[in-house]
Amino acid sequence: MTTKQIVLASRPQGMPAVTDFRFENIDLPGLQEGRILLHGLFYSVDPYMRGRMNDVKSYSPPFQLDKPIQGSVVAKVLDSKSADFKQGDIVTGFLPWQEQIISDGKGLQKIDAAIAPLSYYLGILGMTGLAAYFGLMDIGKPKPNEVVVVSGAAGAVGIVAGQIAKLQGCRVIGIAGSDEKTQLLKEVGFDEVINYKTIPDIKKAIADMCPGGVDVYFDNVGGEISDAVVANINFHARIILCGQISLYNSTVIPMGPRLQPMLLTRSALMQGFIVGNYQSRFPEGIQHLTQWVKEKKLVFNETIVHGFDQLPAAFIGLFRGGNTGKMIVEA
Amino acid sequence: MTTKQIVLASRPQGMPAVTDFRFENIDLPGLQEGRILLHGLFYSVDPYMRGRMNDVKSYSPPFQLDKPIQGSVVAKVLDSKSADFKQGDIVTGFLPWQEQIISDGKGLQKIDAAIAPLSYYLGILGMTGLAAYFGLMDIGKPKPNEVVVVSGAAGAVGIVAGQIAKLQGCRVIGIAGSDEKTQLLKEVGFDEVINYKTIPDIKKAIADMCPGGVDVYFDNVGGEISDAVVANINFHARIILCGQISLYNSTVIPMGPRLQPMLLTRSALMQGFIVGNYQSRFPEGIQHLTQWVKEKKLVFNETIVHGFDQLPAAFIGLFRGGNTGKMIVEA
Repeated sequence: MTTKQIVLASRPQGMPAVTDFRFENIDLPGLQEGRILLHGLFYSVDPYMRGRMNDVKSYSPPFQLDKPIQGSVVAKVLDSKSADFKQGDIVTGFLPWQEQIISDGKGLQKIDAAIAPLSYYLGILGMTGLAAYFGLMDIGKPKPNEVVVVSGAAGAVGIVAGQIAKLQGCRVIGIAGSDEKTQLLKEVGFDEVINYKTIPDIKKAIADMCPGGVDVYFDNVGGEISDAVVANINFHARIILCGQISLYNSTVIPMGPRLQPMLLTRSALMQGFIVGNYQSRFPEGIQHLTQWVKEKKLVFNETIVHGFDQLPAAFIGLFRGGNTGKMIVEA
Repeated sequence: MTTKQIVLASRPQGMPAVTDFRFENIDLPGLQEGRILLHGLFYSVDPYMRGRMNDVKSYSPPFQLDKPIQGSVVAKVLDSKSADFKQGDIVTGFLPWQEQIISDGKGLQKIDAAIAPLSYYLGILGMTGLAAYFGLMDIGKPKPNEVVVVSGAAGAVGIVAGQIAKLQGCRVIGIAGSDEKTQLLKEVGFDEVINYKTIPDIKKAIADMCPGGVDVYFDNVGGEISDAVVANINFHARIILCGQISLYNSTVIPMGPRLQPMLLTRSALMQGFIVGNYQSRFPEGIQHLTQWVKEKKLVFNETIVHGFDQLPAAFIGLFRGGNTGKMIVEA
């Protein structure tokens, strides 16, 4: 039995290209005791994966050349020689970009299609939702009536973070890169929106919208957009570093205005995190997110691309603003 | 009765000059009921005062032109019409740069010369020691065997922060700008020292000294020294922004490498603070500091300049590395 996988063919220099990936057909061995055979249904593409394509020390080890890319996947159990799984079970976990996968089941969780669409387990009920929840709540600590700014607000994490901030009673301003995206943000309840591609002076726009200053900044993008927000932070502001998508493809260390004087004079906090830091508290996060989804207090958007072969292109699309909400590939 | 005061004559552009200050003789009114007449003994000059000379929003309002500079002062009560103070009492508090001062006593604290030299109340038993204590302990949260780097380590706050880190069981590396200063740091117990003025590659020096990364960075200086430290931070590092003396005299927003990608990939925290944030916990800090001073576990160094008229020059000297430990003017 053979299957198709996608390996890292070369480490991208700057923006990744489809030629940095290679499709390979591999043989799958017969199913051993304790193993399960999975068929991939939904594959998550996420900005953080760009970092793993570089050969540098980071929170997770780099992808290996000529080995399959790995990410969050929703898959169906086709065959099982494990006592923990039966044929037809749906699972999610960290798996290779491969059409059929043999797994020992470690780290996989069974999921329930009755609660939410299966793809949601890669998004709002997965790492995406948890990143929004823990970043905002644990680092941002938003209080009612505080002003929260979200960059990359129409992205997978941003749109959830903004809505959770609204649920905390905050005034929420979203920054995104098209009128279609800012329109969506208004529809899900953001108080104010900024299209950074058409506004002449984003720093001034934020100053005008936030005369009392920005209390919490949920940053997904970095770069000049962040410079504009940081220039408007309030005393005791909290800046959550969730992503820096504008910088992921930089081949040199980018320069910008030094932040420390602003953080110092405002007694402000800036903190990076990865969702894995909160692993012991995932049940708390999932419980809140599931409840909000059931109550329709959280609206979730997906951009679904069809076809396993589209995985590299969908991933690259993340850096071109090609997605609204969570980008997912349905096999 | 007349006395001499020092007013802000003009807002400095870049490095302050003695011509930004002006000496004035003023008349003191007769002592009213509830007031005390003070004679200044010791005057504190501190880097943070540079920020108050600019007309910008910060944690404390700017100094006013043609009004006396204000700072921490130790003074003796010459005459009292207040029930709370008697002639001969020694007090400390926030007072104008003036030889004789009339005060209503609000915010002044009586101090005890039997516990420590009077000047210590402007340093290790004053805002300086409290800044080192709360910055390190509350933001840095050092754990035994962690690696702590202190910049401006021979400065008033730095030398205390480094010693407190040693008392927490950390390995402590101090960065300073002369061999005399690094020698002093060794004498007070720093494990390793770097003279940034003579070392060819500070980033590499830190990498060599800290193969496991830097866990806590107590930053008093900012700029390129901080770039070198931040390039070596560990996962879950804490960066305490206590001062940015290398940038205080900048007339434009200085540029530097963007920090967010590093903070993000290391799940690191950077936080600015002023000692006033911890006002409700001052007794806790003073208690620890006093105890350590009594037990001679904390060594404190001062650079004492003599003569009230030397206040402007002593203040300017802070930015030229003219002090080791706390810079104080004795009237």
